[in-house]
Amino acid sequence: MTIETFKIKDQRIFTIDQTRIPESLEYIELDNVQTAYQAIKTMIVRGAPAIGIAAAFGMALAAKEDRDLKAAGDTLKSSRPTAVNLAWAVERMLRVADEQMEDGRGKREEASTPLTDREDAVFHLPSSIFHLLWNEAVAIWQEDIAMNKAMGEHGSALIKDGMNILTHCNAGALATGGHGTALGIIRSAWDHGKKIHVYSDETRPRLQGGRLTVWELQEENIPVTMITDNMAGYLMQQGKIDCVIVGADRITQNGDVANKIGTYSVAVLAKHHAIPFYVAAPYSTIDSALESGAQIPIEQREKEEVLQVGDSPIARPETAVYNPAFDVTPANLVSAIVTDQGVFRFPYGFQ
Amino acid sequence: MTIETFKIKDQRIFTIDQTRIPESLEYIELDNVQTAYQAIKTMIVRGAPAIGIAAAFGMALAAKEDRDLKAAGDTLKSSRPTAVNLAWAVERMLRVADEQMEDGRGKREEASTPLTDREDAVFHLPSSIFHLLWNEAVAIWQEDIAMNKAMGEHGSALIKDGMNILTHCNAGALATGGHGTALGIIRSAWDHGKKIHVYSDETRPRLQGGRLTVWELQEENIPVTMITDNMAGYLMQQGKIDCVIVGADRITQNGDVANKIGTYSVAVLAKHHAIPFYVAAPYSTIDSALESGAQIPIEQREKEEVLQVGDSPIARPETAVYNPAFDVTPANLVSAIVTDQGVFRFPYGFQ
Repeated sequence: MTIETFKIKDQRIFTIDQTRIPESLEYIELDNVQTAYQAIKTMIVRGAPAIGIAAAFGMALAAKEDRDLKAAGDTLKSSRPTAVNLAWAVERMLRVADEQMEDGRGKREEASTPLTDREDAVFHLPSSIFHLLWNEAVAIWQEDIAMNKAMGEHGSALIKDGMNILTHCNAGALATGGHGTALGIIRSAWDHGKKIHVYSDETRPRLQGGRLTVWELQEENIPVTMITDNMAGYLMQQGKIDCVIVGADRITQNGDVANKIGTYSVAVLAKHHAIPFYVAAPYSTIDSALESGAQIPIEQREKEEVLQVGDSPIARPETAVYNPAFDVTPANLVSAIVTDQGVFRFPYGFQ
Repeated sequence: MTIETFKIKDQRIFTIDQTRIPESLEYIELDNVQTAYQAIKTMIVRGAPAIGIAAAFGMALAAKEDRDLKAAGDTLKSSRPTAVNLAWAVERMLRVADEQMEDGRGKREEASTPLTDREDAVFHLPSSIFHLLWNEAVAIWQEDIAMNKAMGEHGSALIKDGMNILTHCNAGALATGGHGTALGIIRSAWDHGKKIHVYSDETRPRLQGGRLTVWELQEENIPVTMITDNMAGYLMQQGKIDCVIVGADRITQNGDVANKIGTYSVAVLAKHHAIPFYVAAPYSTIDSALESGAQIPIEQREKEEVLQVGDSPIARPETAVYNPAFDVTPANLVSAIVTDQGVFRFPYGFQ
């Protein structure tokens, strides 16, 4: 794996500071629950699966410091509201802690067995809730990579040799435990020898497409061309896009997809041009508690993200700004949802 | 008029350096044809009607220096290929020079008569081709403002009290001799007491919407909210946009519209949401020599515009970039074209 979003060394967890890519590749340590919260909040770590993993380690670190796990979980969940993975990871960690309280620790030792390729990362004789939670966080992380690779295989079947693929934001290794969701499919197709070319929307306001997706693909020599978000329609009009692949932060029962702001516009454009629009996400992204996308909370972020790029201001500081971080693409604009459990199509009816 | 894009003082012509807005309001002098060429090329002055005016003054300044006017015109026309106004203004200036050669100068003195409110700007007893061309440039400029005001009146009838209007790029006073085309309609509606609110696409890569349109509207206290380009679809989905108004750089016989990159995407989105999509441009923007938009040359600009914002780099300098400055919106996505000569609808059949 070229890009390691998370790294464990001496039982300490590090993650790439994604606000510094592509200028420099720097790791910061998630050394306690507050650091994990801040890293998620400020988007040092971002991407639905990746923030789930960071939150899982945050929970383990809370246990290490003997904090109230329920309170720690609430704090972590409050950092970003739209992605379901964050709440999902926190709940899973709380369940492990609860089971341990009830059952004693012997039973959970087995949890570390499947992680054979990351034996260095886990505690082999877990002797505390911290150890068990740490091992569970490692499991969440490693399972995510395995799911992404499964998804990559399922999705790769949709990609033909010579295709020009448009993606939006970053649903890559950086957004996950590794390999990526949307970019995972692209990686898998590339690894299968398909000659593909990617157009990456820069994805204002945070420019995850321009900063992260372009960097990720360049690191692996997969051909990529960067465009501004408003060029996608013109490319489609000229027949330069064969399909679109994006990630997802939450998917509802009916197949509606919350993803980075701008995804909906791309989906409408793809529909207008009869271009397949694929969504890639682990099955855990499906929030079966919600019937439709109208129920998904959409995070509003601070106006400075829109008013400046890096240190360069665009408009006056007092300018009114609308800055939703996500939008919802209705199921009828989605050609297929690729998960680790296979490819699903409309009407979805996820349970 | 609050915003004076061009200013004449002591028979010298100055224009706002639009690359410095909103940080500072600075005028630079167009002191010879080369300065005019550079100002257009580097987008110190931009917007189809405004570059036509700058080119007209460039032609007058070429005459002042006794340069070959045909060669000067070719240089000016080469600065930007898409807008028709540039070529139109240069041709008009060359015609005046040609007539003068043939007819003597007496006849052209009358040309300055209609410009009564800018008596300070013209030569009253033109004694050279320079004087005549200067007066013609002033005429082009003043006629543009008059056309924009006529267009504003026609277009204002389409705007209802309380409307939320989306615009893209800057088709304002800054893009013209004054008052503006798309923003001219908004100004006129506002002056008629209509309570409107504008959403301004920031318009990457050059951010004319975020930098210029937001600034212009703030200068006149017209309510404006800035968004990134990829938010327009989501706003429409939520019912927050009542109509779209944009400018145009060239319109063909059949009603196809070349305008700033991203316009086409907005038009597709508007169509999908059944939102009226209006184009505002002086009748001279119609290039009756071209049957359809496929014949319009689309300017490709340098990749640095996409790769960085101000001094802030987004991706590595070697990144592949696609950077068309314009796109073409087909006539069937346009609800109406507002000109100084009235409001036109599909099928257009301009002659």
